[in-house]
Amino acid sequence: MYELGVVKRNIQRADRVAVDRLAGFGVATVHEAMGRVGLMKPEMRPIYTGARLCGTAITVLLQPGDNWMMHVAAEQIREGDVVVAACTADNTDGFFGDLLATSFRARGAVGLVIEGGVRDVKDLTEMLFPVFSRAISAKGTVKSTLGSVNIPVVCGGALVNPGDVVIADDDGVVIVPAAWATRTADAASAREANEAEKRAKLAAGVLGLDMYKMREPLEKAGLRYID
Amino acid sequence: MYELGVVKRNIQRADRVAVDRLAGFGVATVHEAMGRVGLMKPEMRPIYTGARLCGTAITVLLQPGDNWMMHVAAEQIREGDVVVAACTADNTDGFFGDLLATSFRARGAVGLVIEGGVRDVKDLTEMLFPVFSRAISAKGTVKSTLGSVNIPVVCGGALVNPGDVVIADDDGVVIVPAAWATRTADAASAREANEAEKRAKLAAGVLGLDMYKMREPLEKAGLRYID
Amino acid sequence: MYELGVVKRNIQRADRVAVDRLAGFGVATVHEAMGRVGLMKPEMRPIYTGARLCGTAITVLLQPGDNWMMHVAAEQIREGDVVVAACTADNTDGFFGDLLATSFRARGAVGLVIEGGVRDVKDLTEMLFPVFSRAISAKGTVKSTLGSVNIPVVCGGALVNPGDVVIADDDGVVIVPAAWATRTADAASAREANEAEKRAKLAAGVLGLDMYKMREPLEKAGLRYID
Amino acid sequence: MYELGVVKRNIQRADRVAVDRLAGFGVATVHEAMGRVGLMKPEMRPIYTGARLCGTAITVLLQPGDNWMMHVAAEQIREGDVVVAACTADNTDGFFGDLLATSFRARGAVGLVIEGGVRDVKDLTEMLFPVFSRAISAKGTVKSTLGSVNIPVVCGGALVNPGDVVIADDDGVVIVPAAWATRTADAASAREANEAEKRAKLAAGVLGLDMYKMREPLEKAGLRYID
Amino acid sequence: MYELGVVKRNIQRADRVAVDRLAGFGVATVHEAMGRVGLMKPEMRPIYTGARLCGTAITVLLQPGDNWMMHVAAEQIREGDVVVAACTADNTDGFFGDLLATSFRARGAVGLVIEGGVRDVKDLTEMLFPVFSRAISAKGTVKSTLGSVNIPVVCGGALVNPGDVVIADDDGVVIVPAAWATRTADAASAREANEAEKRAKLAAGVLGLDMYKMREPLEKAGLRYID
Amino acid sequence: MYELGVVKRNIQRADRVAVDRLAGFGVATVHEAMGRVGLMKPEMRPIYTGARLCGTAITVLLQPGDNWMMHVAAEQIREGDVVVAACTADNTDGFFGDLLATSFRARGAVGLVIEGGVRDVKDLTEMLFPVFSRAISAKGTVKSTLGSVNIPVVCGGALVNPGDVVIADDDGVVIVPAAWATRTADAASAREANEAEKRAKLAAGVLGLDMYKMREPLEKAGLRYID
Repeated sequence: MYELGVVKRNIQRADRVAVDRLAGFGVATVHEAMGRVGLMKPEMRPIYTGARLCGTAITVLLQPGDNWMMHVAAEQIREGDVVVAACTADNTDGFFGDLLATSFRARGAVGLVIEGGVRDVKDLTEMLFPVFSRAISAKGTVKSTLGSVNIPVVCGGALVNPGDVVIADDDGVVIVPAAWATRTADAASAREANEAEKRAKLAAGVLGLDMYKMREPLEKAGLRYID
Repeated sequence: MYELGVVKRNIQRADRVAVDRLAGFGVATVHEAMGRVGLMKPEMRPIYTGARLCGTAITVLLQPGDNWMMHVAAEQIREGDVVVAACTADNTDGFFGDLLATSFRARGAVGLVIEGGVRDVKDLTEMLFPVFSRAISAKGTVKSTLGSVNIPVVCGGALVNPGDVVIADDDGVVIVPAAWATRTADAASAREANEAEKRAKLAAGVLGLDMYKMREPLEKAGLRYID
Repeated sequence: MYELGVVKRNIQRADRVAVDRLAGFGVATVHEAMGRVGLMKPEMRPIYTGARLCGTAITVLLQPGDNWMMHVAAEQIREGDVVVAACTADNTDGFFGDLLATSFRARGAVGLVIEGGVRDVKDLTEMLFPVFSRAISAKGTVKSTLGSVNIPVVCGGALVNPGDVVIADDDGVVIVPAAWATRTADAASAREANEAEKRAKLAAGVLGLDMYKMREPLEKAGLRYID
Repeated sequence: MYELGVVKRNIQRADRVAVDRLAGFGVATVHEAMGRVGLMKPEMRPIYTGARLCGTAITVLLQPGDNWMMHVAAEQIREGDVVVAACTADNTDGFFGDLLATSFRARGAVGLVIEGGVRDVKDLTEMLFPVFSRAISAKGTVKSTLGSVNIPVVCGGALVNPGDVVIADDDGVVIVPAAWATRTADAASAREANEAEKRAKLAAGVLGLDMYKMREPLEKAGLRYID
Repeated sequence: MYELGVVKRNIQRADRVAVDRLAGFGVATVHEAMGRVGLMKPEMRPIYTGARLCGTAITVLLQPGDNWMMHVAAEQIREGDVVVAACTADNTDGFFGDLLATSFRARGAVGLVIEGGVRDVKDLTEMLFPVFSRAISAKGTVKSTLGSVNIPVVCGGALVNPGDVVIADDDGVVIVPAAWATRTADAASAREANEAEKRAKLAAGVLGLDMYKMREPLEKAGLRYID
Repeated sequence: MYELGVVKRNIQRADRVAVDRLAGFGVATVHEAMGRVGLMKPEMRPIYTGARLCGTAITVLLQPGDNWMMHVAAEQIREGDVVVAACTADNTDGFFGDLLATSFRARGAVGLVIEGGVRDVKDLTEMLFPVFSRAISAKGTVKSTLGSVNIPVVCGGALVNPGDVVIADDDGVVIVPAAWATRTADAASAREANEAEKRAKLAAGVLGLDMYKMREPLEKAGLRYID
């Protein structure tokens, strides 16, 4: 794990049906459905408002200032994949731009999540190629040091294994382990079913205090009302 | 002050007429009108471009990772209030989302200012519910530890007392103490009256150096022109 | 250099023809064309999506919380200039707003790059006055301490000499030394000529691995494929 | 409150006996004794290991890059005071050095807490003059813009009123409102009395799980042990 | 993985002989010996100069502002373990102090690595209990929400499995997967054997350019010497 | 300037007598003597308390994650030089350790200033080799991409030309342009002569308000005293 200089070709992608179902939910819902785990740190932001993606992870471990492995990763992409790129050190260089986006899309990728920088954001936005990154930077990178492709990586503070489901929207990025995909989709469905009713009540002025029966536990916890 | 486990019910809100007048000014103007005080730090940003709010503060002191007090605060909201939420520690969790926004709006709230994170930003944007926060995060929170409602809080580096006027726009967030509301509205009016004339002169190519009579003080301060 | 209290009036601006040619390229392209130097740090961001500028630098060295020198700089602006403002300390105050923008534009400025804060961003956006800054802040500044105008400054981590070409877009800000303007425009043209062909190949599914002939060097570097 | 250009001369200092008692406790203990409030943010650090102070607050509101008000504050210092300096904007300039420390000490001050920078740290360390700051910087400041002395300030995220008790050690800085001094000293004493016994038990290998009777609530909360 | 509410009791610790051998090397050497992977981010710093630890990981996943799981973890500690604590969100609260250190040491722990805050640093220093953390903070924590013990965690940007070897010194923190312990110790030994000779040559004025035979590759890469 | 792939061999070092005189002053004094310019940002910190250096700059421009140019720089070092290393992007990798320190010292270097990371800090401390850096990190670097040696660089926000005087102590790092060395030493001497007398007065309880005759300008500025 975390070995440098390795490309794993055969990876086990999450079940496609489950991935397609998960595509219908927001990141917050999926995160809750998983038991409140799997989120990347909030530093990972979309490069344009409304960017959204859901797919299976091709993982890349980059070296700072070097995007060689992005080209190696391109060959491993299958239809419906999301490239998830980590780096051995914090680095905001522009590892990715419109040429790589063109290549990734041609190979079937539906987006990129990168703990690093990207450039050509105007072009990427016009292409509607969704990218979630820590930075935007025009800085060019070299192609000289090996990293790896399809090893487990830590990206945005989350562990990502190749084949995991990656879901990202305006609220952030969440990783669903491949083995959890179906059950998480189930839990997300159940959760959403609940929300419409709650929203209606709250819109009618019912308080969460009453709807969630919080008054007693608050009192027990010692909450005091004063005038 | 700053006591945990307390909800103050009767608060003295700023004069409504003054609040409505202040709603007509930008944050920069109000901050200047107050004598250049009252601003929150620039880390407090709107979740969508063009978000804007003006109202009276309901204050909340949260615990990290816990949004229980948001529900307690909901009950204290009156028409025209803005919820101002601080936290006992820096924390970017998603304390607030579309359900709470629905509830707050139903109770009369016109927006939220939070030194923390929020989620469901796409929904909040569609609802046109203005939120100013330090972060966006899908991360869920628990409901288990008491904070307080309607005590003085420090939010975004500014002291906020319940009932103070909160004004926020693309330039940031400013707090006008309730007792200063009328005089600040007066000063803001006076200030705006001046600006149109200045703008016209500057647009015509008159220099600030001349309009503000800066040449003499600059020379006195020792400014040297060289070629 | 870096002396305080000095205004240089006669500066050598980059060749206008070269500046106009550079205006046709993106920041990433120019940065590459210069040999991968000249970029400001990625903290320098446009205040609105799509902001873009290209012009010759008027440099300003500000003191924290003080925008006096901005007014001094206004007088030095010629048609097609960009004001580049550095500060003797990290400071996010709102050194610049719609009045100064009106003045700068009246004098011929095409935009501002500032390692500091700006305010009135709604107005600046409506004016389509492009600004690249480290922060947005409503905070007012005083006019009492001397800095300098048209001395070499370090802004966003880049050295800027008066007269240098400043190009900024959604990808960031790049500085082309005045003496390099023509040759950089040439190199940028050459670079762009190449890109269309590459893009077409990549869009057709050709891999960068093959197009850039990376397979052999990767193997030499020791890359291993596993299943 | 927060008005600029004001010096309050007569302030109500916390009870001296209570202050002296509080001097005997660590910051963590005092913070707990107050009900877990009153801490500054952890960015406030001692300039040398082992720095420690306890006294009553003289508050100062500085302008960025300007330490004029430090001189104004010096005159207000009485024996046993701690100067607490906030700034209208984040600024790391060196507002304070060995000359001011000499002056403050001569007037009776026992230390400084500053949301800003200090310099001459080698001299300050040799003088054993305790300073807690956000930064160390050699950068000089001017004396040209008014702030205030002895108004309520927000420093390090905490509200400080003149006369409050300020306690700082390697763990950080805590503010005890003047009116709470005696009761906080009482609560701190009670808390410390408990700790020796707990420590002995834990040192003997007793688990907190048993000592604090956590096993049942953990089980209720759903904790599962697996092999 | 990453499931909340779980404690794994039987973990496979790295081979003790290998751990003891690794204890003899610095973090930089071990990181190199592993092939330049396994480091935590440089934000993880020792609380006192010279702190150093080497042991097998007990992992903890905390919730923000809540140290309940630290008590649960205490029971799982065996002689020679290091507790590695991650948190579901960035949080600098003081999750750990002298009482927990007393308990951990009594159970056999040789130190703590925590992506969070600690307090009582003076006591911890006097106890010579090595702690590597992201922050120091006196802030107290509650005991109310479940996390997990001995699941894989991401701490300081590194993946840590229970039983892995944790080595930390003034240069940072490195994680050696349990299965790699022996081979990493071998590689570290080999590496150190080389260094003495290199150091002697360099001390004698031999250049790395010559010792590492860099002149030819530098020339090939295009390095130009000018006068 | 800023060209990559270049090593300048013949540089004009600042006058040695002036350098030796400057070695006798603290950073704060030199910064003031220069007219309050030339400081690096406060992020540049010594790796051990009491580290101090003064010498002439050998400049290096590194690439992220790559320390090849450090070896190239070693050959250019002459007795009394300080290596000043910048990087084309923010990067905290450990570009420098005890082997390079041994080599640099053997060539005559008196210290290092680096906007990046260093490792082996225990060894460097024992060698009393002064280093001022932005980070400490054990992370290894490669040797594959060209930067430059002895070109002007921006390090810690300051412009450094080869041959400039570099002075660093616990208060930070200041750069004196080679041509300013003598006059800055003169100004620093004059400044120090003044300080002893001032310190004596302040120690005797004289207020800065009186010593600097501030009462009148404060009154003019509008300062109000209230009770």
